[in-house]
Amino acid sequence: MIIQAPYLVFLGDATDKLSIKMAQGVADWRAQLCIGETSVPGCTVTTGLEQMDIPRAAKLGAKTFVLGFANSGGYLEAKWVPYIQEALKHGMDVVSGLHDKLTDVSDIRQMAQSLGRQLIDIRHPSEKFKTGTGKERVGKRLLTVGTDCSVGKMYTSLAIEKHLKAQGVSASIKATGQCGILIAGGGVAIDCVAADFISGAVEQLSPDADSTHWDIIEGQGSLSHPAFAGVSLGLLHGAQPDALVVCHAMSRNHMRGLPHQSLPTIIDTIRLNEQAARLTNPNAKVIGISVNTSSVSEEDGIAFCQALSQELNMPCVDPLRMGVATLLESLAL
Amino acid sequence: MIIQAPYLVFLGDATDKLSIKMAQGVADWRAQLCIGETSVPGCTVTTGLEQMDIPRAAKLGAKTFVLGFANSGGYLEAKWVPYIQEALKHGMDVVSGLHDKLTDVSDIRQMAQSLGRQLIDIRHPSEKFKTGTGKERVGKRLLTVGTDCSVGKMYTSLAIEKHLKAQGVSASIKATGQCGILIAGGGVAIDCVAADFISGAVEQLSPDADSTHWDIIEGQGSLSHPAFAGVSLGLLHGAQPDALVVCHAMSRNHMRGLPHQSLPTIIDTIRLNEQAARLTNPNAKVIGISVNTSSVSEEDGIAFCQALSQELNMPCVDPLRMGVATLLESLAL
Repeated sequence: MIIQAPYLVFLGDATDKLSIKMAQGVADWRAQLCIGETSVPGCTVTTGLEQMDIPRAAKLGAKTFVLGFANSGGYLEAKWVPYIQEALKHGMDVVSGLHDKLTDVSDIRQMAQSLGRQLIDIRHPSEKFKTGTGKERVGKRLLTVGTDCSVGKMYTSLAIEKHLKAQGVSASIKATGQCGILIAGGGVAIDCVAADFISGAVEQLSPDADSTHWDIIEGQGSLSHPAFAGVSLGLLHGAQPDALVVCHAMSRNHMRGLPHQSLPTIIDTIRLNEQAARLTNPNAKVIGISVNTSSVSEEDGIAFCQALSQELNMPCVDPLRMGVATLLESLAL
Repeated sequence: MIIQAPYLVFLGDATDKLSIKMAQGVADWRAQLCIGETSVPGCTVTTGLEQMDIPRAAKLGAKTFVLGFANSGGYLEAKWVPYIQEALKHGMDVVSGLHDKLTDVSDIRQMAQSLGRQLIDIRHPSEKFKTGTGKERVGKRLLTVGTDCSVGKMYTSLAIEKHLKAQGVSASIKATGQCGILIAGGGVAIDCVAADFISGAVEQLSPDADSTHWDIIEGQGSLSHPAFAGVSLGLLHGAQPDALVVCHAMSRNHMRGLPHQSLPTIIDTIRLNEQAARLTNPNAKVIGISVNTSSVSEEDGIAFCQALSQELNMPCVDPLRMGVATLLESLAL
C-alpha cells in the first residue's frame, strides 16, 4: 500500500478536534507532504494547514484526497460522496480510514475505475499475508508497547524515527494503525488483519534490512487490555524487537473504554512485554519509558518522568516536552 | 451460523486420511448427524459412514452437503462445482471449510440464491462482532490450551463435553475451528476473525449462561507459537476460563511447521496460560493435562501420562486411551 503525496486533507464538517485526529497527525508529522486542508460550511476546526478548495489543491499538485475525519461508527456518509467524486475528477486518489469501504460505494468505485484512480481503504489491508515464522531477521527493530491503548505509541514512534534520522541513523517508521499509515505513506492496519496473520503481517512489514538499520515499529493496544491483547502479542512476536519502549499516559484510572478494568503497573508492563518478546528475540529489552503527560503542567509532567526514571533506573521522558534523546541513550547506534 | 443436520459428507477424490480430517471428525463425534458419505472414482479413503450418492442421501433426508476434504491451499477446484450444484438441486445447503469461498463462485451463488439454499463458508465468519470487554459472565467455562498447534485440543474438548453430558452435567461445546464448528453445528472460526475482535468474538460465542452450566471452549494455537500466539491470547481472554486443560502431543521435536522453534515445557505452558488468563478471570487454573500419545504404544502412552501426573501433581490422561474422568475430578460439578 503506497500513498502518493502531496495530500489534500478533508475535514468535512468536523467540530471536534478529536474527530480529525488523522488529519492532525499528518499535519503535525508530515506537513511537507500536505498541500492544504479543505472543509465544508459548519466545520469549526483546523489542522493549521492552508485552507483551499479541491480545484486549487489540484492545481497545486495534490495527488491524494484524504478523508481526515472519523465518526464513532466509522461510517461513510452519503453527503461526502460528491466531494470524493470531485477529487477523483481532479486527478486525485482517495484515502479513507473509515470502517466503511470506499470500494463498496458503487458510484465511487465506478468513477475511480473509469478514471484510473486508486481508492485506498487503509483499514482494510489488501495484501495477502503469510503466517509468521519467528525466524531471525537482519537489521534492528524498536517497538513501542503500552500500558493501555491510546497512550502515545504512534507519537513516540514518530519522535524516535525523527530523532534517529536527525542523528544520521538509517531508520524507518513502520506504521500499524490508520493514522500512522497515512503519515508514513504506507503500512498495515494490523487490527484489521485476519487473526491468523497478525505476526506474519508484521514480519512482512519489517523484513530483512541492513544490519545497522532501525525499523521503528508502531505498537497497538496493550498486553493487559482484554479486548486487544491478542493484537499486541502477535505484533510483538512479529516485530521481533531488539528494543522496546513502554508508553504510558498519566492520569488514567482504568483501561480505555473499560471502567471495570484496572491499569497494569509500568513494572508489570515491562516484565510482561520482555517475557513475551523473548519468544522471537531472546535479547529483547525495554530501554525506556515514554509518558504522555499532557494532562498535567509541564513542570509536573517533567517531575513525574524524573521520579519514574529514578524508580525504574531507566530513561523516562515525555517525547513532546523533553525529546527522546535520553530515551535512546542505551542503543548502540 | 447454524448448520442443519443431517449431513452428507463429500470426500471428493481424496487418497489421504489427513485430507479428510473434517469428514472424519464429524463421523467420529457426530455419527448420528451424518446420513452417509459420497465420493468420486479415485477416492481411496472412507470415514466408515455408509456410502451413497447425492439423490439417495436427499431421499434419506440429508439437509447439508459438507465438503469434508481439504487441499493444501484451501482451493475450491472447478471440478467440484457440479457436485455442489447437484446437492443444491436436491435441497441441501452446502458447507465448506476451504479458504476459497463458495459465495465467490457465481454459478454456485446464483443457484443457491434462486433455490433459497444456504452457502456456509465456515472459515469466513459472517457475524458482526464487538470488541471484547473482559466483563465477568455467569456460568462456568473450560478452555483447552496447548504446547503447540494440532495437539488434540478439539478432541479433548469434545471428549470432555461428552463425559460431562453423560454425567448429567449441563455442558456445551463451543467450537473455534472449522472441524469443531461442523461437529458442533455452529461456532466461530476464530483465526479468521479480524484481529481487533478475537476476544470479543469469543465473548459472543460463550455468553452468560446458567451458573452451573459448563461451556467447553475449543482452544487454538499456543501462546508459545510465533505465528498464532495472538489468536491464542485473545481466545484465552475472551473465554474467561475457570478451568484450563493443557494439551500436548508426545514425540514432537519442534513447534508445528517451524523446525527452528523449540517447544515450551508443559510447566512453562501452565504458568504462561494461568498468568495470562487471570487478566479476565482471577481464579483461572490449570486442572490437568491431556496428552496425545498416539505416536507410541498404549502401554508407553499410559506410562508417560502416569509419570507426568506424578511430576506435576495433577491429572494427566490421553482422552482416547484413558478417558477424561480423572481429568475433571477437581471440578466441583
